[in-house]
Amino acid sequence: MRMFDIISKKKYNESLSKEEIDYVINEYTNGTIPDYQMSALLMAIYFNGMNYEETTNLTLAMAHSGDMMDLSEIGGINVDKHSTGGVGDKTTLILAPMVAACGGKVAKMSGRGLGNTGGTIDKLESIKGFRTKLSEEEFIDNIKEIGLALTGQTGNLAPADKKIYALRDVTAIVDSIPLIASSIMSKKIAAGAGAIVLDVKVGSGAFMKNMQDAEKLAEEMVKIGSLAGRNTIAVISDMDEPLGLAVGNALEVAEAVKTLKKEGPEDLINLCLELGTQMLIASKVEENADKARGMLQNSIDDGSAYNKFLEFIKRQGGDITVFDDLDEFTECNYKIEVKADKEGYVQRIESELIGEASMILGGGRMTKEDVIDYSVGVKLSAKRGDYVKCGDCLATIYAANKDKILEAEGLIIKAFEISEDIVKTSPLIKRIISCKNI
Amino acid sequence: MRMFDIISKKKYNESLSKEEIDYVINEYTNGTIPDYQMSALLMAIYFNGMNYEETTNLTLAMAHSGDMMDLSEIGGINVDKHSTGGVGDKTTLILAPMVAACGGKVAKMSGRGLGNTGGTIDKLESIKGFRTKLSEEEFIDNIKEIGLALTGQTGNLAPADKKIYALRDVTAIVDSIPLIASSIMSKKIAAGAGAIVLDVKVGSGAFMKNMQDAEKLAEEMVKIGSLAGRNTIAVISDMDEPLGLAVGNALEVAEAVKTLKKEGPEDLINLCLELGTQMLIASKVEENADKARGMLQNSIDDGSAYNKFLEFIKRQGGDITVFDDLDEFTECNYKIEVKADKEGYVQRIESELIGEASMILGGGRMTKEDVIDYSVGVKLSAKRGDYVKCGDCLATIYAANKDKILEAEGLIIKAFEISEDIVKTSPLIKRIISCKNI
Repeated sequence: MRMFDIISKKKYNESLSKEEIDYVINEYTNGTIPDYQMSALLMAIYFNGMNYEETTNLTLAMAHSGDMMDLSEIGGINVDKHSTGGVGDKTTLILAPMVAACGGKVAKMSGRGLGNTGGTIDKLESIKGFRTKLSEEEFIDNIKEIGLALTGQTGNLAPADKKIYALRDVTAIVDSIPLIASSIMSKKIAAGAGAIVLDVKVGSGAFMKNMQDAEKLAEEMVKIGSLAGRNTIAVISDMDEPLGLAVGNALEVAEAVKTLKKEGPEDLINLCLELGTQMLIASKVEENADKARGMLQNSIDDGSAYNKFLEFIKRQGGDITVFDDLDEFTECNYKIEVKADKEGYVQRIESELIGEASMILGGGRMTKEDVIDYSVGVKLSAKRGDYVKCGDCLATIYAANKDKILEAEGLIIKAFEISEDIVKTSPLIKRIISCKNI
Repeated sequence: MRMFDIISKKKYNESLSKEEIDYVINEYTNGTIPDYQMSALLMAIYFNGMNYEETTNLTLAMAHSGDMMDLSEIGGINVDKHSTGGVGDKTTLILAPMVAACGGKVAKMSGRGLGNTGGTIDKLESIKGFRTKLSEEEFIDNIKEIGLALTGQTGNLAPADKKIYALRDVTAIVDSIPLIASSIMSKKIAAGAGAIVLDVKVGSGAFMKNMQDAEKLAEEMVKIGSLAGRNTIAVISDMDEPLGLAVGNALEVAEAVKTLKKEGPEDLINLCLELGTQMLIASKVEENADKARGMLQNSIDDGSAYNKFLEFIKRQGGDITVFDDLDEFTECNYKIEVKADKEGYVQRIESELIGEASMILGGGRMTKEDVIDYSVGVKLSAKRGDYVKCGDCLATIYAANKDKILEAEGLIIKAFEISEDIVKTSPLIKRIISCKNI
């Protein structure tokens, strides 16, 4: 078998066999196939795509390229959640304790963020003492005992994906549905997830700009998961404005705490209820969606979800006294209000620009080596559909120093599209895709 | 400027600016842009193409990536010819002396062959003593004195092309019209060609399988050449069977000698007359095509072209006594006739298979390190349109040892398509493209 012939086949839009895909993944992982041949193949895949069988074979080859974690010791069906990435997305921090409070076994593998905002791990690291590196034993033990643990990638999980992702990242081949689907699912399968709930974002602030692409990606992942024997459900949710009000690391943790205490923004709590419902269904804790939703709502109302959150933070070494005074927790050198320069309804808030503002303030990484400042970020005061007057506060900038404030302000002003047209509300949850409805 | 953004632009089918193309070529040549980014860009170019302006900018950037030869000292307009590559193509050996005998200044830069048959340099090296490495001074002096010189690439000409070509070769990105056009033209422009005649082959045995692609490539190159101030004319010629009868190095030299002595096969002499006519026109030796053709025919008839050939070979160190006995010159250990296994008209002769037979006998290189055996090859006894009976000789295999004879025989049998249908002759010369008729 020769890589040259495999590139050539994909270039001429022929499908690749399981043997060819296994060959590519094995030989690329062990370094026999050089990067320059792999990037040529990836670009050909970007243009000609992959059919369902090819994508599944690619996913399984990547999943098996390193260690395969075995979480069966936990008992029951453990569940993981993955979001394709959105600005202000702190759902994991709220969802995981809610689901655990309802009897789910949440085994969450998280990554660090590269780009606009930090990942869940970065957010949690804004809590003094919190440890995101657990051994496999600790991870399993914590889930067995409190129903919930979160860790950064441990061991040598899906090294092929790591290598391919890094290559896609420098060759502008990120937005390919089969490559995104196989990247996400290979990691989840290798990490031993029993059930997987996928939050596929759609809209201007997401990878998938339109519903058609989002549905294609969601269906692809649900099919792959099911074939690999993992109950998989995808929720397609709106990303035409940031989720909730807070963007930044400590700011998002504070918003998560407030949400767990019944004071969260409506869109955020609704998304958490929907994703939580699917997590309880996927892990077979409760099969009726209305009942599952009731249980989750109850976990907020009776404080059990918040108590589970505190238990989780403490268990992983975090100092829970930081939540006693959230204003102190989100203290920052400079807080600057950004005011509206015109009057009207907020039509949309360009998530990417808000994310960029947070990043240049120091809240996200441009390169892997960048150090995140947990205190900075942006807190919105208006959301889509709100009516604002000239001079009203649109958002507050949290900055560590004066340098980048002007630039961030410009981005925020640009992000807000304001006009006199009345805004039609569009639903946050667009569609739920499981094996049953593909 | 970032390579990432340039790849991204081409991926989304936007055109690249002159500045962006210059950046890519400069930084790739000096090693700042890595191969894996370049191969991603080249694959995106394969899929989305380049417009005429982009291809011209790419060509000029590659031409200027190293030394630019100055041949103005020769006086008049020197002319080079380039063929996109065909099996049995020994036209240079015949054409160059014909044109020189008519007063043209032929400055021929040649490459070694990689693939089915040797390049012109390999063919000439089958002549004892012949030197293909000339200094720039020698090259210019020879042309000034006898109107003709041939050399392998000297100096650091178009290093960007060399590097890109090598990368395309291992990433299956060879068949892209803008990449082929820029590769050919950048070398010719850097080598100081005053006028360029391009022999664009079309058919099953050529890079360009159909007329539409051949025309596109030809027009692209003619436009680029004209813009760079070099008179450029393209001749589109048929490659649905090998050119002439001989395929192999010494065998092709012998056929060239015979052709110069009025004993050549019809297709070969016709192509030489046509290409020669265009070379005389492009270099402004004669502007009337009929007159030019008459001069060229005359150079064969009165022996002046053959005398020029002998002068040229002697001047570059070759032993012209080898031509006294062509049978001895083409002597080979084994000569095996391949016989027809059915009766009928030869519909076509798959050039690639004949070329492959010559290569496996040792006449061509599979890798750059392979050593060519000049004596081996294939000599056809039948051409398209001929009627053959069972047992008639189709071709003779010239082999140095017994090993590969059976395999070569199989390829030759497979190459001949024979049936009872009468063969419609199709013209050898399909179209002539110059600035005037694009």
